Amino acid sequence: MANALRLGVAGLGTVGASVIRLLGEHGDALARKNGRAVEVTAVSARDRTRDRGIDLSGLTFFTDPIELAQSDEIDVFVELIGGDNGPAESSVRAALSAGKHVVTANKALLAKHGVDLAELAEDNGVCLNYEAAIAGGIPIVKTLRESLSGNAVTRIYGIMNGTCNYILTRMEKEGISFEDCLADAQRLGYAEADPTFDIEGNDTAHKLAVLTSLAFGTKISADDIYLEGITSITTADIQAADELGYRIKLLGVAQKTDTGIEQRVHPTMVPKQSAIAQVDGVLNAVAVDGDFVGGLVLVGPGAGGDATASSVVSDIADLARGDVTPVLGMPAKDLADYTRARMRLHEGGYYIRFTVQDRAGAFAEIAKAMGNKDISLQSIVQRHRGDADRADAKSVILITHETTEVAVREALDEIAETGVISGVPQMIRIERLS
Amino acid sequence: MANALRLGVAGLGTVGASVIRLLGEHGDALARKNGRAVEVTAVSARDRTRDRGIDLSGLTFFTDPIELAQSDEIDVFVELIGGDNGPAESSVRAALSAGKHVVTANKALLAKHGVDLAELAEDNGVCLNYEAAIAGGIPIVKTLRESLSGNAVTRIYGIMNGTCNYILTRMEKEGISFEDCLADAQRLGYAEADPTFDIEGNDTAHKLAVLTSLAFGTKISADDIYLEGITSITTADIQAADELGYRIKLLGVAQKTDTGIEQRVHPTMVPKQSAIAQVDGVLNAVAVDGDFVGGLVLVGPGAGGDATASSVVSDIADLARGDVTPVLGMPAKDLADYTRARMRLHEGGYYIRFTVQDRAGAFAEIAKAMGNKDISLQSIVQRHRGDADRADAKSVILITHETTEVAVREALDEIAETGVISGVPQMIRIERLS
Repeated sequence: MANALRLGVAGLGTVGASVIRLLGEHGDALARKNGRAVEVTAVSARDRTRDRGIDLSGLTFFTDPIELAQSDEIDVFVELIGGDNGPAESSVRAALSAGKHVVTANKALLAKHGVDLAELAEDNGVCLNYEAAIAGGIPIVKTLRESLSGNAVTRIYGIMNGTCNYILTRMEKEGISFEDCLADAQRLGYAEADPTFDIEGNDTAHKLAVLTSLAFGTKISADDIYLEGITSITTADIQAADELGYRIKLLGVAQKTDTGIEQRVHPTMVPKQSAIAQVDGVLNAVAVDGDFVGGLVLVGPGAGGDATASSVVSDIADLARGDVTPVLGMPAKDLADYTRARMRLHEGGYYIRFTVQDRAGAFAEIAKAMGNKDISLQSIVQRHRGDADRADAKSVILITHETTEVAVREALDEIAETGVISGVPQMIRIERLS
Repeated sequence: MANALRLGVAGLGTVGASVIRLLGEHGDALARKNGRAVEVTAVSARDRTRDRGIDLSGLTFFTDPIELAQSDEIDVFVELIGGDNGPAESSVRAALSAGKHVVTANKALLAKHGVDLAELAEDNGVCLNYEAAIAGGIPIVKTLRESLSGNAVTRIYGIMNGTCNYILTRMEKEGISFEDCLADAQRLGYAEADPTFDIEGNDTAHKLAVLTSLAFGTKISADDIYLEGITSITTADIQAADELGYRIKLLGVAQKTDTGIEQRVHPTMVPKQSAIAQVDGVLNAVAVDGDFVGGLVLVGPGAGGDATASSVVSDIADLARGDVTPVLGMPAKDLADYTRARMRLHEGGYYIRFTVQDRAGAFAEIAKAMGNKDISLQSIVQRHRGDADRADAKSVILITHETTEVAVREALDEIAETGVISGVPQMIRIERLS
């Protein structure tokens, strides 16, 4: 058997500790499977003395991850520090430049510097693997880079943020408001003290940006993602969705269109009977539509130390076997430029909820504006607001047939001008799924 | 770039034609991704002249697949002939012995000769890849061999036969009898003229046998699978399942127990809200429980020329990149012997439907027998048979708490002896899923 593949683990948080524990428990089996042993020889962390529940005896300890990255004691640098700059970025660059393979769970780093790092890895003849960076334990990177490499992908979409999915699921199952769910999620550790990054969709966007590149062979372009979080979703929307045969999920979607590639993160109505609609709580799911495979859906844990460690170790196993895959599915220099499809050209169905004054003609004005923009309606629901202060305020809910974003936006502007509605209408895009 | 990887495709049915078409359409992209071109240089089929809608000009044509397997014109033998012996087996053996890699979609061959062929491949230093053999377009082989290699798998289960799932789905959605659904499935091409192999579970068993080996590192043991088909399932069972919060699916399940590994294929009640319960029609799904990843579910097309070709080409791409994975996840000589866990020791919940005469004391007899075997009941439903000839016949449906197969079987024997029931009770196992 070849010499052991020597790992340096930078960052000893939950995931780092799980990785070391996994390799301790299953190291022998892995060596048999890969034909090569794997051993952690060195680690880095800020605090040398903290008890992490793992045995670090015999391992060289660095406080500077860059020193670890350049150490002669390691063949693979495992970056579990996090963050899109600072020590994570500099140590990954140092490792690649020193001819070390890198395994990382850092989505923010990849979303920002992925193409650049891929070129650096390829110039140095080493691998940069990151299965754990996207959807935790779900093997979506390998599925795209390897299993679906014979397909032209037409769309990739998924539930990639457990915090949002937990909140939306509880709002649906228990009829609790967004604010109360968020507070509960924070109490249970499913949401950060500052939850902005999750609930506004940025976290999903980071993952989507990398998946878009893998799926379509384009450069990563995280800044070109249309972004809408879940803070405006009410229990009224969720109930209406239920009655109309939908569930509301925060999806990240990348889709090929005639004018480029749409990348969008927004609350989405998905048909109840679709696989993605059944993904509840903190679970994640990623779905791919390809020209030969048809549709594939992967469901699993999107976070957690152990599940993430499973993916980190899968990347390490590939290195132990000597499997070399281009970082972004094809050599970074061959990636096409990303062409953004404008959101105003987005085509799809829409759910729109208006609060109207209970006066004759309000609905006629709405219908007229829709008609002016050639938007045809599939369903119309009218009802009194259960939660309104004013008994004379009604909800009017429309489901449109396939139309365009610009038509909907212009119709909403026209309706606002008539003065028949109160407040800002709620607008949720419907995703067509089989 | 290295010399092109030369393929010989044996068998030009639906899948073979799709593979050739896929390589024609996406060959350039694949070469960029893999760093090596792939080209079909030769094919074999029985009939040279048939129009298959693909261009075979320039390809060497063999009528004998063994000659193709041994040809100097190929590096990889792609076996798409089918069958667990005859030309498929002999040509695969010939190819491996001649030092050619083999890619196959042949589950029957692997279920019967997998370990033997794995040893032959490994002795000759070549690969035997078979992503397409199990669940069509779903990348479950790669997921088990590579993505989950750091996990101890505790259970693997799935819906792996589209014919059965199509029939069960239509029975549920439309209330049609098994016989009518089967006839429709045959008319639509979803079921064979002789459907036995599908509806009795043999096809699922072949796939399960290979997955068990991959999941648990044991030798393939297809003859040790407990087998029960779907022919006894009635619309009454499906309706009762629905009322009790379940759906009925034909599952293949392999599970680690204290006494060995259970392998079983049988109709199964799965909780409605589980991911697997939502898999309808001809779709397949495979789920894996692992100690680090937790639970993972993959849903996709289990058959069809194009979806299967997607998996065949994924195997070819691995060869083009030079990725070498042991055939059954670890070297065949290291596989452990398979120890069968006896079905009578199976633990789980049970659904039992009796037809009883409408006389006092019948239910007391049933309850007494259950109590004698320490079987506690979770739900009891009693109702008149809607479909009975005799208005005095009632259905009694029980859902048990966790118990053992032997206890249930002995209780049913005891109940039969009392004479309070008519016919054979229906017994469907419940799978505990999160």
